[in-house]
Amino acid sequence: MEQKLSELAPQASLVGKPVSQLSTPLPVIDETRLEANIDRVQSYMDKIGKAFRPHIKTHKIPAVAQAQVKAGAKGINCQKVTEAQVFADAGFEDILITFNILGLDKLEELAALNEQIADLKVVADSATTVNGLAAAFGQREKSLKVLVECDTGAGRCGVQSAADAISLAEVIANSEGLAFAGLLTYPKAFGEVETEAFFTEALSGLQAKGIACPIVSNGGTPSLFDAEKVPSATEHRAGTYVYNDRAMARSGHCTLDDCAMTILATVVSRPTETRAVIDAGSKALTSDLLGFQDYGHVVDYPEAVITILSEEHGVVDLSGSAPDARPQIGDRIRIIPNHTCVVSNLFDQMVFQRNGIVTRVEPVAARGRVW
Amino acid sequence: MEQKLSELAPQASLVGKPVSQLSTPLPVIDETRLEANIDRVQSYMDKIGKAFRPHIKTHKIPAVAQAQVKAGAKGINCQKVTEAQVFADAGFEDILITFNILGLDKLEELAALNEQIADLKVVADSATTVNGLAAAFGQREKSLKVLVECDTGAGRCGVQSAADAISLAEVIANSEGLAFAGLLTYPKAFGEVETEAFFTEALSGLQAKGIACPIVSNGGTPSLFDAEKVPSATEHRAGTYVYNDRAMARSGHCTLDDCAMTILATVVSRPTETRAVIDAGSKALTSDLLGFQDYGHVVDYPEAVITILSEEHGVVDLSGSAPDARPQIGDRIRIIPNHTCVVSNLFDQMVFQRNGIVTRVEPVAARGRVW
Repeated sequence: MEQKLSELAPQASLVGKPVSQLSTPLPVIDETRLEANIDRVQSYMDKIGKAFRPHIKTHKIPAVAQAQVKAGAKGINCQKVTEAQVFADAGFEDILITFNILGLDKLEELAALNEQIADLKVVADSATTVNGLAAAFGQREKSLKVLVECDTGAGRCGVQSAADAISLAEVIANSEGLAFAGLLTYPKAFGEVETEAFFTEALSGLQAKGIACPIVSNGGTPSLFDAEKVPSATEHRAGTYVYNDRAMARSGHCTLDDCAMTILATVVSRPTETRAVIDAGSKALTSDLLGFQDYGHVVDYPEAVITILSEEHGVVDLSGSAPDARPQIGDRIRIIPNHTCVVSNLFDQMVFQRNGIVTRVEPVAARGRVW
Repeated sequence: MEQKLSELAPQASLVGKPVSQLSTPLPVIDETRLEANIDRVQSYMDKIGKAFRPHIKTHKIPAVAQAQVKAGAKGINCQKVTEAQVFADAGFEDILITFNILGLDKLEELAALNEQIADLKVVADSATTVNGLAAAFGQREKSLKVLVECDTGAGRCGVQSAADAISLAEVIANSEGLAFAGLLTYPKAFGEVETEAFFTEALSGLQAKGIACPIVSNGGTPSLFDAEKVPSATEHRAGTYVYNDRAMARSGHCTLDDCAMTILATVVSRPTETRAVIDAGSKALTSDLLGFQDYGHVVDYPEAVITILSEEHGVVDLSGSAPDARPQIGDRIRIIPNHTCVVSNLFDQMVFQRNGIVTRVEPVAARGRVW
């Protein structure tokens, strides 16, 4: 054998092969659905007049981000400095990192990145983070753009009030080496009313102080098509929409037929009449439930329920299927994952297909970039 | 900058550095605890007179498996062909793959592996799997050793009765190119009575038919120190014991002080008095709950509860900690994960430390090998 599966599978040489011949477990992206997802969301953003900034977390692949930008996206959103490095090296010039950057190593790399690309932006939600950024950028010629992250209801990071947002914006604006670039939220899904109220109050206060606020950045896929209900926002960020998944279908953002990623798995055991075991476990599907009771939607056997995952095995309850309509050992099944982004982080390469034939194999270049 | 975090972090050049200077999030292995875990379990197996076969799933690192074999382990246990390839290339000659291998590509690679190493073994729990193996090995000079996987109570793969185990053993024994090598179970934790009963009945039936059964393989970490309660078993397999984790401490196998892996994280936000946000999310800790309600044990702040993970953020509830004993922005915390094996699958390299100083950085060579 010239190449081992362990070294290169899935390989670039897979292009042109039927997907049905590929080794499982394997996530595969449907090109037609991918294109439709990109077009549908960009068209909506164009229609409502907001800039759109895709979050790369879902695919972690420069070629997919290039398709998003080609369709009209303004720039991209990364979560970590090391992700931004991958995309900067791939030629992206407008990158927003939505994370509080702390630590000397990361600040040094952030400074190098700010020299490398035209338009780098980060967020901060505390004076501690701002002071760290100011210490790293105070002596540099090119200042760093910093947005204030606001907690408008999601309960993760962010300042808790418009007053705090205004105060922190002032600290940024008064810091040598930093430029206040705007407000940002990672919002609660369907929390448009709270988000708009927060932004409106903060913008009014900034205006009263004469502080310009070039960007107001809202985000999220679940209620993306309600983005127009936050008129203050100048841009919207979203990641999951590009592949979609079972959780997005449940939220009403899309249907299961809009999910571009399916995970191919093989039935490797049928210990009982009602139990199948597949070769996709948490190393292929992840343990993300996102409120579901089971680990993905089985496209070909919709009554089948993936009840338990260990690392390499998925246990499937077939009791809801008619006895003559249950998969046998060796049969393949296709699974729409609960959460597509986390699956991307498990595979070094992603296979794309159209009409069942492999079109390309892309390195998941930013996989594992947690720093 | 010569090297970017995204390219090489954590780097081999980290050796000798204080762990406190490394970029977070980062899992780190304590060498002293690792050695103690290996010695404690091997000593027990030596004492009760069973062969011990570590499962590499927990570390996926040849150097750690070498330490396990050096301590006295008989061979190793892999779950997938591509994992076995990594360890065969690293010089291991006795490898058991505990998975039903199906599919032409995998069977071809399995055949090459059987030529490469001295002692390869796989399992099967159905005639379909056995027939596939027989088709791939029937014309080959060196036969493949096959164990019958038995479901002794765990409810995953495996034949359901001793009678079925005996029948399948006969099929294997009568298949050109295959050699019946024994019985195996992935047992229910603390299910020693059921496991022994299953094995005893099957062994008796095999003996009556004159079929030799060289190996009887039991497994699992949670009730590992009850392995002597399965006298029929000739060997025991276990993975998690090598690092240990919060779930193993809950099972009584170890204490939290025996957990060799801790994940270093940094507090990046303190939005409220009782909320901290850390830079370790599901890409560092995974979403595995294993019956817990939260995502790991915070060593330095045991009252802190990691309530919600998104991919790069962990939300920590500090309401149980005294107001003057809560971590501030920039502080580091150490987390014992619920499930250590799945964390290993997220990082390309693993950092080891002794007394807070990095001793080595090992590639996680079998990370992501799901085929």
